[in-house]
Amino acid sequence: MNITLEQAQKVVAAAISKSKELKVLMDITVVDAGTNLVAFARMDGAWLGSIDISAKKARTARYFNMPTGEIGKLSQPGEALFGIEHSNGGLISFPGGVLIKNSKGDIIGAIGVSGDSVDNDHTVAQAGADAL
Amino acid sequence: MNITLEQAQKVVAAAISKSKELKVLMDITVVDAGTNLVAFARMDGAWLGSIDISAKKARTARYFNMPTGEIGKLSQPGEALFGIEHSNGGLISFPGGVLIKNSKGDIIGAIGVSGDSVDNDHTVAQAGADAL
Amino acid sequence: MNITLEQAQKVVAAAISKSKELKVLMDITVVDAGTNLVAFARMDGAWLGSIDISAKKARTARYFNMPTGEIGKLSQPGEALFGIEHSNGGLISFPGGVLIKNSKGDIIGAIGVSGDSVDNDHTVAQAGADAL
Amino acid sequence: MNITLEQAQKVVAAAISKSKELKVLMDITVVDAGTNLVAFARMDGAWLGSIDISAKKARTARYFNMPTGEIGKLSQPGEALFGIEHSNGGLISFPGGVLIKNSKGDIIGAIGVSGDSVDNDHTVAQAGADAL
Repeated sequence: MNITLEQAQKVVAAAISKSKELKVLMDITVVDAGTNLVAFARMDGAWLGSIDISAKKARTARYFNMPTGEIGKLSQPGEALFGIEHSNGGLISFPGGVLIKNSKGDIIGAIGVSGDSVDNDHTVAQAGADAL
Repeated sequence: MNITLEQAQKVVAAAISKSKELKVLMDITVVDAGTNLVAFARMDGAWLGSIDISAKKARTARYFNMPTGEIGKLSQPGEALFGIEHSNGGLISFPGGVLIKNSKGDIIGAIGVSGDSVDNDHTVAQAGADAL
Repeated sequence: MNITLEQAQKVVAAAISKSKELKVLMDITVVDAGTNLVAFARMDGAWLGSIDISAKKARTARYFNMPTGEIGKLSQPGEALFGIEHSNGGLISFPGGVLIKNSKGDIIGAIGVSGDSVDNDHTVAQAGADAL
Repeated sequence: MNITLEQAQKVVAAAISKSKELKVLMDITVVDAGTNLVAFARMDGAWLGSIDISAKKARTARYFNMPTGEIGKLSQPGEALFGIEHSNGGLISFPGGVLIKNSKGDIIGAIGVSGDSVDNDHTVAQAGADAL
């Protein structure tokens, strides 16, 4: 069960709307349940380095079916998953990646947002995911 | 001078519109003048392998400031640029990538389209570029 | 709609059975509809280089929804898709990768086989896909 | 001296059996003594990100002939092997990778398991290795 392009564009639009409300500039990636890219948008002036980070956040959230920040708690020095970021061609384990579910609760994809503080990144990603 | 997100989304919308007219399913990438990703859309059911190809077409067009098919003529066995596809992390040298210019003729980005015959890929990419 | 592990193991078993019948040694990869790995088996003595080739064949078949050998016809020098192998981290465009469909005809994954002649590779892959 | 496919499949089956007993969903990779892939299985619903992690755990165990968790103790900040995860295309240095030995004690391969807590990952990997 995969997100459609129409749904993904709705998610991106909601994320951009929230970004404007917060007065931040974001890169926004949406992937499907198989972690394949569906939609992307970079707001004018948003960080170039966040293109890749937003993509890695979206994939990381789907790879482990949890918000990216949860993984980061477990990957600190001395914690159980220290160094997990070296897998899968590079994970991003700080906040900004969240799952996208349909009305039945099935995972249909994930959104990754990067461009500002990780709190704002997460807030924008959640606003995107909540649009469905 | 770079394409804006609003312009890139207009380019993507025009490419999708042309794809629907041709009854084809496409992956569409828009990059800016620095070859950095601005917008992407994968139509429902479009080839997964075309995500990367559309991105490589857009970048290839901007790398050398010409439609991707022109490079392919020069990269055949025995021709001057044979093997150029090995550069830049992988080029795509068949049609479907074209430059995007503003009304003054300045290059502001490029569009790459993949998902059907190379002729249709090029037609859809050109329709996208012509939207500005 | 994705292949299950039970189905994938049935596909692998059928491919191994056909390989033994042909007296060939094969590497066999099964991916799901999102091109993510589900099952793999390397027969004793099969080529080490075919581990990666079988994986690339399976993904290539799903990337473009056709048997890998069809792509190879179009990627020869002078043909429309010359050089496409440079995309997606490396494609394999000779026979041995085929789609896996369920009884309704939905694509649920793909199988890639490598280890002998491309004709035998394809025959074994098809035998695997036909097991469902 | 290398693990056979029959042995590797027995290891995978034992790991799946233990996973079901623990009610966890795992990705399971078996490599031979040369770190080359022999068998893989992803249980239905297991994390997609654990495909790569299970493979890296299996190889990491064999690269240094010790359980992966032992390496993680030495790769913490300030410790002797800090940063070793950057080698070999990416190591995984937390538990879940263990060596596979034959009845004489010769190393014939390794198993990597990922999909749950690192304790469960290790328990399942050990159950797999103990099947021979």
